[in-house]
Amino acid sequence: MNFLITGAAGCIGSELAMSLLAQGHTVVGIDNFSSGKPEHIEAASRCKEFHFIEADILSPGTVESALGNKVEMVYHLAANADIKYQEGESTNRDLEQNVLATYRVLEAMRVRRVNKLAFASTSAVYGIAKRLPIPEDYPSPKPISLYGASKLACEAYISAFTHLFGMQSWIFRFANIVGPKVRAKGGTVIGDFVQRLKADPTRLKILGNGKQAKSYLLCEECVEGMLFGVDHATEELNILNLGASDSITVARIAQMVSVAMGLEGVRFEFGVTAGGWLGDVPQFMLDVSRINQLGWRARHSSEEAIAQAINAMLGRIEIGQILRVANA
Amino acid sequence: MNFLITGAAGCIGSELAMSLLAQGHTVVGIDNFSSGKPEHIEAASRCKEFHFIEADILSPGTVESALGNKVEMVYHLAANADIKYQEGESTNRDLEQNVLATYRVLEAMRVRRVNKLAFASTSAVYGIAKRLPIPEDYPSPKPISLYGASKLACEAYISAFTHLFGMQSWIFRFANIVGPKVRAKGGTVIGDFVQRLKADPTRLKILGNGKQAKSYLLCEECVEGMLFGVDHATEELNILNLGASDSITVARIAQMVSVAMGLEGVRFEFGVTAGGWLGDVPQFMLDVSRINQLGWRARHSSEEAIAQAINAMLGRIEIGQILRVANA
Repeated sequence: MNFLITGAAGCIGSELAMSLLAQGHTVVGIDNFSSGKPEHIEAASRCKEFHFIEADILSPGTVESALGNKVEMVYHLAANADIKYQEGESTNRDLEQNVLATYRVLEAMRVRRVNKLAFASTSAVYGIAKRLPIPEDYPSPKPISLYGASKLACEAYISAFTHLFGMQSWIFRFANIVGPKVRAKGGTVIGDFVQRLKADPTRLKILGNGKQAKSYLLCEECVEGMLFGVDHATEELNILNLGASDSITVARIAQMVSVAMGLEGVRFEFGVTAGGWLGDVPQFMLDVSRINQLGWRARHSSEEAIAQAINAMLGRIEIGQILRVANA
Repeated sequence: MNFLITGAAGCIGSELAMSLLAQGHTVVGIDNFSSGKPEHIEAASRCKEFHFIEADILSPGTVESALGNKVEMVYHLAANADIKYQEGESTNRDLEQNVLATYRVLEAMRVRRVNKLAFASTSAVYGIAKRLPIPEDYPSPKPISLYGASKLACEAYISAFTHLFGMQSWIFRFANIVGPKVRAKGGTVIGDFVQRLKADPTRLKILGNGKQAKSYLLCEECVEGMLFGVDHATEELNILNLGASDSITVARIAQMVSVAMGLEGVRFEFGVTAGGWLGDVPQFMLDVSRINQLGWRARHSSEEAIAQAINAMLGRIEIGQILRVANA
């Protein structure tokens, strides 16, 4: 089959490209390198079945022309993925890069009569849930971040386009995705902690009170889960949570990073707020029974995923040891 | 208090303006007359506490400058309200006039520190519900129209802005609104039937199989309900269904319109599809217990609201008679 991946040079997109190529498919990848990196697609670029387009999916005609190449299914992963909104920043980043960009993809698919779409959504659509774990049919999701709002808006449009124009869609609501390619700089809690501890190994400032607890998933398992979901979920519109079935606290991650860096006696400086930043959902844990029932589950717990990601980033201490020492 | 009403020359906006003025408030109204009409605001314009701005809320600075006038709360009603999407039409009408316009309103409110917002949403956000009546916390709404998708996207953004920037919001999910000012041309089932029967009084073509059953609400009661909801719902983010607690079929409305026009033996030509058009939700009935419990309920059933609206449009036969004859 012929696939288009938007955001192909991202952590997930590049991993997905390799998986599809390994299965013998043809892949067209688009990325504007706003957060994706050229080195992520080096491996894919060696395959003759991989075609890369450096472009912004918001520029008129880009997706439509990319679809021209007999594409049969789109994995739309391109997005602003920074969930944090900081005062003084523009409030329309997610609106443009997520909502408008997704509309452009949908509209191009409609025009080109491409009717299969997988979409990278997020657990942030739920906002602060009144009960955990959160199932896909959680009543009345109320996002509290611009990022979560934009992804829920995308989902709404995917739902309408799917119904109106005879598409079939898979919406994956991801846990926090971690892995070797996930940007070290900002964006992820592990990279953030590593940076701070490199700057000052005696203390670590933690955003929020450290009790924030979230579900994680390794990037490679995220790709596995998506491919499995697309193969096995057969509704017209499929919504699937994707993550480990447990959660892990920020304080625990701080401890694991310190151990992995070989640091002892780091002073953890906790904040006082429940959330780490404006729009942070302090506690979430996904109910992943829907994809479990289809026959897939994450192989690693949230803690194991974090340990893997730390190891991949630092490579200093083996995973078992990170877990053992941090548990001691 | 000082209010801003966007879409002030619409059916609901102009009715709301009169109510707020009658309560002694000051009202700034904006409308671009894309669907609103100058005659709707003639009465309000006679009050010196009413200030009207003819403008498109999408033009940069419009809302921000309107808020400058010490506005304390916004009723954001301006929208493309045509739910029908017809093949060949552009798919971005609701995205621009609803999603982007609502974002502009929210952003202007953030900048001007206006923190109370009431928003006209729609029962179309639910899509095809698996059970009726539909409560506000219906699991995982999946809109099937571009209109419904755009309004759910607006709701998502209102949810995020409310949380992030300390606002208080009221989202009203309307039933079908009917009343004297609701446009005769297109858009409403009554106006559509009247037009068709005027053109040919012997037969009436009905979109869909006629079994579509929906909840209705008179425009004036919609305004009452909103004002009541804003006064009595005290959460940070309040979502309230607004409509009669019953529904009425399209076939029944066709019968009532024929009776009101004094026509006998009209041949009703039903279609075969469950929905009347692409994206039509064939059956919906709102669970209005949330606003009922706050102390408000619609005074007219869906059938009575339709009879009132027919009477207001045609004025030929009194309401009781429409109901009696149509019941016979």
